[in-house]
Amino acid sequence: MTYCIGVLLKDGIVLASDSRTNAGVDNFATFCKMTVFERPGDRVIVLLSSGSLAATQAVIGTLRQRTESPDWATDNVWAARTMFDVAMMVSDAVRHIERRDGEHLAHSPNPFNASFIIGGQIKGEPLRLFRTFAEGNFIEAGPDTAFFQTGETKYGKPIIDRVIGPKTSLSDAMKCVLVSFDSTMRSNLSVGMPIDLACCASDDLKLTSRHRFAPGDAYFSALGNEWVEGVRTVFRNLPPVPADKIATS
Amino acid sequence: MTYCIGVLLKDGIVLASDSRTNAGVDNFATFCKMTVFERPGDRVIVLLSSGSLAATQAVIGTLRQRTESPDWATDNVWAARTMFDVAMMVSDAVRHIERRDGEHLAHSPNPFNASFIIGGQIKGEPLRLFRTFAEGNFIEAGPDTAFFQTGETKYGKPIIDRVIGPKTSLSDAMKCVLVSFDSTMRSNLSVGMPIDLACCASDDLKLTSRHRFAPGDAYFSALGNEWVEGVRTVFRNLPPVPADKIATS
Repeated sequence: MTYCIGVLLKDGIVLASDSRTNAGVDNFATFCKMTVFERPGDRVIVLLSSGSLAATQAVIGTLRQRTESPDWATDNVWAARTMFDVAMMVSDAVRHIERRDGEHLAHSPNPFNASFIIGGQIKGEPLRLFRTFAEGNFIEAGPDTAFFQTGETKYGKPIIDRVIGPKTSLSDAMKCVLVSFDSTMRSNLSVGMPIDLACCASDDLKLTSRHRFAPGDAYFSALGNEWVEGVRTVFRNLPPVPADKIATS
Repeated sequence: MTYCIGVLLKDGIVLASDSRTNAGVDNFATFCKMTVFERPGDRVIVLLSSGSLAATQAVIGTLRQRTESPDWATDNVWAARTMFDVAMMVSDAVRHIERRDGEHLAHSPNPFNASFIIGGQIKGEPLRLFRTFAEGNFIEAGPDTAFFQTGETKYGKPIIDRVIGPKTSLSDAMKCVLVSFDSTMRSNLSVGMPIDLACCASDDLKLTSRHRFAPGDAYFSALGNEWVEGVRTVFRNLPPVPADKIATS
């Protein structure tokens, strides 16, 4: 499994991904799921990968190779005019790999599967955030829905729903995303550290920050423990079920 | 979808179910998913149903009819010697309906599906809690895993994980189960009120309490609002991400 999230705010974009891949519970490994294309002052593009590792690596490999090929000189992420064009390129690469691998995996227990969260900014337009599906189609975040998740999305969603809005500060959004990862990892063993956390402030046109939280990270551990303690305290202080509702009706 | 939960504690059992059934988002209805077989002083048995309504109603109908049939005089829930025997009877009824309906539904987008949480006590043994699967096999809760959920289990699981242990009081467990329903309903529209909440205290050998929380219930609404406010306050008071972790690495 995987957990990736991208959050679009007024002040910027926050993106984070876990690093666990697994083919069965006895076959875990660590791979970075965050890919950055950055040319400071011109563009910053962050991709978060979900799906089978062979599929997502093939898509990223294809996108990278096209940046170096004369045949793709006008059709690669460095040449893209807009983030919409980048999302189209990712979509095309997904379909290219699906055509190549799909039929060979049709009867596999792990059929072709690759989806991406794509966030960033190209000079001349604001920050934008997209999410592609395994079929290659995609959607863009807007003011009403400011975040996308992929993979194990459920355990970590309530905190995002309850805390994040378009005006949330980048610092609060990063904290919230980390709490969301803590909740997810406590409930699903197939999501695991390290966590890659990146932030692009609006109009910075580069990675404003990037940090990898390794297992045992003191801040991340404290955050998780304080969160659990706080939640338990809130629960204890909630009003008890009234007596008239626990009498036999 | 559905959300049902049964919690086995030292002091008793708490069981709760939502009431929403749906066949597509434009076809919602309300059905009680809690069935009680009660003979005070002798036994109390609570079933919570998940799956397709036709399947679960057929199973419950079969169990009820067998209590009235001379052919099943020694093989119905009133005659069961133990809760294990009750779980076997539910399992047999599930397989009976599956044999009848299964092949007719094999190509339906909603194939045969019925699973149950079964909690209660029969005089002579302690309270016991079981969960059957769609295939009819089943498991029993023990001291290490004190609760079972069916249906939309994820959003409501973290609070249960973090608060409930075998020594939790019945009152706290009921409050926690209601918070778990609040979290689930905020994130999944296909789980809906009313919520049926029942409790059997150990050795009461009857329903100790049963209450239906209708939409707009003042206590349930206050609980949900205080929970959200409390969680937001805890979040605000968590330490911010340290400056060295949000610098570009």
